[in-house]
Amino acid sequence: MRVLGVDPGLTRCGVGVVDSLPGRRARMAGVGVIRSDAGLTVDLRLLRIADGLEEWLDAHLPDVVAVERVFAQHNVASVTGTAQAAGLAMVAAARRGIPVALHTPSEVKAAVTGSGRADKAQVTKMVTRILRLDDPPKPADAADALALAVCHLWRPAGALHGGERHELTSAQRAWAAAEAAARRKG
Amino acid sequence: MRVLGVDPGLTRCGVGVVDSLPGRRARMAGVGVIRSDAGLTVDLRLLRIADGLEEWLDAHLPDVVAVERVFAQHNVASVTGTAQAAGLAMVAAARRGIPVALHTPSEVKAAVTGSGRADKAQVTKMVTRILRLDDPPKPADAADALALAVCHLWRPAGALHGGERHELTSAQRAWAAAEAAARRKG
Repeated sequence: MRVLGVDPGLTRCGVGVVDSLPGRRARMAGVGVIRSDAGLTVDLRLLRIADGLEEWLDAHLPDVVAVERVFAQHNVASVTGTAQAAGLAMVAAARRGIPVALHTPSEVKAAVTGSGRADKAQVTKMVTRILRLDDPPKPADAADALALAVCHLWRPAGALHGGERHELTSAQRAWAAAEAAARRKG
Repeated sequence: MRVLGVDPGLTRCGVGVVDSLPGRRARMAGVGVIRSDAGLTVDLRLLRIADGLEEWLDAHLPDVVAVERVFAQHNVASVTGTAQAAGLAMVAAARRGIPVALHTPSEVKAAVTGSGRADKAQVTKMVTRILRLDDPPKPADAADALALAVCHLWRPAGALHGGERHELTSAQRAWAAAEAAARRKG
C-alpha cells in the first residue's frame, strides 16, 4: 500500500509518499514541499497548492491520501489557509476516487514516537529512523507529511475514516467519483 | 459586468449571479444553493461543492467571482468547512483566469442596507428590492450570495482586491492560469 501524507499549509504544504513493506516496515518513495508565493493573491496561492498536489498524485499514484485534521482552535491566525489547503488535498483525492483519511497531530506523534505530545524534533528523528533515511527530511512540514503517511500505515485496523460517518468502500468511492465526473461533463 | 457571488458553506453554499445595468441598477441572472449530504465523508462533501461551483461557472460565465471573506474568529465550530468551501470557489475561479474578490460580511451588509450591522432579514429585504425580485430569495445563503455580488458591483473604485498585495490585471491572471494549466499537462 502506498500512502501520500499531506501536512496542509498555504505557504508550505508538506507532501510525503510512503510504501508499506512486509513486517511493519516502510519505505519512503518521495518527499517535498509545495510552496506558494506570499506576494500573490490568495486565489492564485491556492491554485499553486492545488496544482502541486495534482502533480504529486500524478507522479506517485497513492492508494490513500492521509491529511492532517485541521482544528479551528489551533493557530487561529493561519487556520483559514491551512483548512483550505487540506480541503484541496481532499477534493483532489476524492475526484480520483482515492480514499482520504484524516489524522490528528497527536495521533501522528503517538504513532511515530509513542507520545502524542512529542515535539517536532522528536517526530523528525523517528521518521528518519523508521524510514532509514540518510538525512532528516527538511523542512519540518516535509517530515510531518512522512509521519502522517507512516501513522496511516500503522493505524489500528478499521480506523481509515475514524470519526467519519458512512464509511465507503473503495468501489463505492470510485463510483461516486465517476458519477461526479459524469455530472461535470453532462 | 457579471458577478458570481458565493456565500461559502459545506452544508449549504449559496450562489447568486448578478449583472450590472446602466445607472447603478442590477439584474439577477440566477440564484441557488449547492448542498452536500452531511452523511458523506468530508472529502466527498467537498467534491460535491466543488462540482456544483464548476457547474455554476460553466452555466453563467461570470467576469468576477466574489467570495465572502472567512474569519477564523467567527463560528469556530463550522469555520473549517466554510473556509474550505471558500477555497474551492477561489481555486475554481483562478483556474479559469477569473478574478476573485473577497468581501467581509460587514462590507456586504453596508453595501446593500447602508449598515454594516444589518440582520439577515434586512439583507434579504434589500436584495429583493434592489434586484426587483417578485419573492425574497431563500434560504438566507442564497440571498447572501446575491448581496455579495451586488456589494461587488457597487464597491468603491479600485477595491477589487482590497487588502491583497500584488494586484494582477485580468491579462496577468489569464496568463498565470494558462501557465498553471501548462504545468499540469507537462
